Amino acid sequence: MSRKRFDKFDCSIAQSLDEIGDWWTMLILREAFLGVETFTGFLKSLGVARNILTDRLERLVASGILEKVQAREDIQRYRYRLTPKGHDLLPVLVSIMQWGDRWLRGEGKEPMTLLDKETGMPVRTIAVENAKGDRLDIAAIRIQPGAGASRATQKRFTAKEN
Amino acid sequence: MSRKRFDKFDCSIAQSLDEIGDWWTMLILREAFLGVETFTGFLKSLGVARNILTDRLERLVASGILEKVQAREDIQRYRYRLTPKGHDLLPVLVSIMQWGDRWLRGEGKEPMTLLDKETGMPVRTIAVENAKGDRLDIAAIRIQPGAGASRATQKRFTAKEN
Repeated sequence: MSRKRFDKFDCSIAQSLDEIGDWWTMLILREAFLGVETFTGFLKSLGVARNILTDRLERLVASGILEKVQAREDIQRYRYRLTPKGHDLLPVLVSIMQWGDRWLRGEGKEPMTLLDKETGMPVRTIAVENAKGDRLDIAAIRIQPGAGASRATQKRFTAKEN
Repeated sequence: MSRKRFDKFDCSIAQSLDEIGDWWTMLILREAFLGVETFTGFLKSLGVARNILTDRLERLVASGILEKVQAREDIQRYRYRLTPKGHDLLPVLVSIMQWGDRWLRGEGKEPMTLLDKETGMPVRTIAVENAKGDRLDIAAIRIQPGAGASRATQKRFTAKEN
């Protein structure tokens, strides 16, 4: 979890993976989105070792992805709830799920279906789109250095045509 | 990479993480989307150890995410190219990037900007949406067992109201 690890990449993907790029972390987040809030709940649904669960929950709280709330005043019992930063990971998890549904399970073999409660219709397949909502593949995308780009990033993305 | 690891979860997220849930794997994919194709290219841009790079590239080829193509007939030089299964990971990487841009870098500090080549406008923020294109948060989503749900998954998602 050291800064050095990703600093040289000047990349939000690398930086994000440092907070969430772990098998158990992603599955804990999956459970959190499914409504699990207690240590025992995560333990039961994931079958993860206690020490690993303790470590990952602590990291998620330290990162501000989960918040630890004391559930009762009289005893030390805590609930772990997704913060706004945590809730904002939903598209990451759903895009991973949809990719797995498509390429690892195959059509008609999906373990779960996500429906819009209001309409009862399945959620859309997540895609990279332009402002009009047209899907873009990598060939249709130009990559430019962002406002916070390091020198190296600026050089890389202006040196060549995309 | 054993099947056993994720089988009990009956979950496309877990199954996907078994193929792509690794720091270096994701960064290799990032480079592949940026146009890097050679072992030396990955080595230089990531500064990853040779043995790790060899291992991760082999896994990505074995998973059918990258294909290994002999670049020249006379010498053993290979190129690694994204397959359709690999290309389909773009929304996963972009959603991770956008989350990092928002929560780890902050506005105006993005290392990279993705633009639609045709319009020159930034790509949309990836979201989970219904058929009409309205954004859905987890509270607006009902989870049902899918067509390929195991018994345990069926029980879990029909036992309680979502």
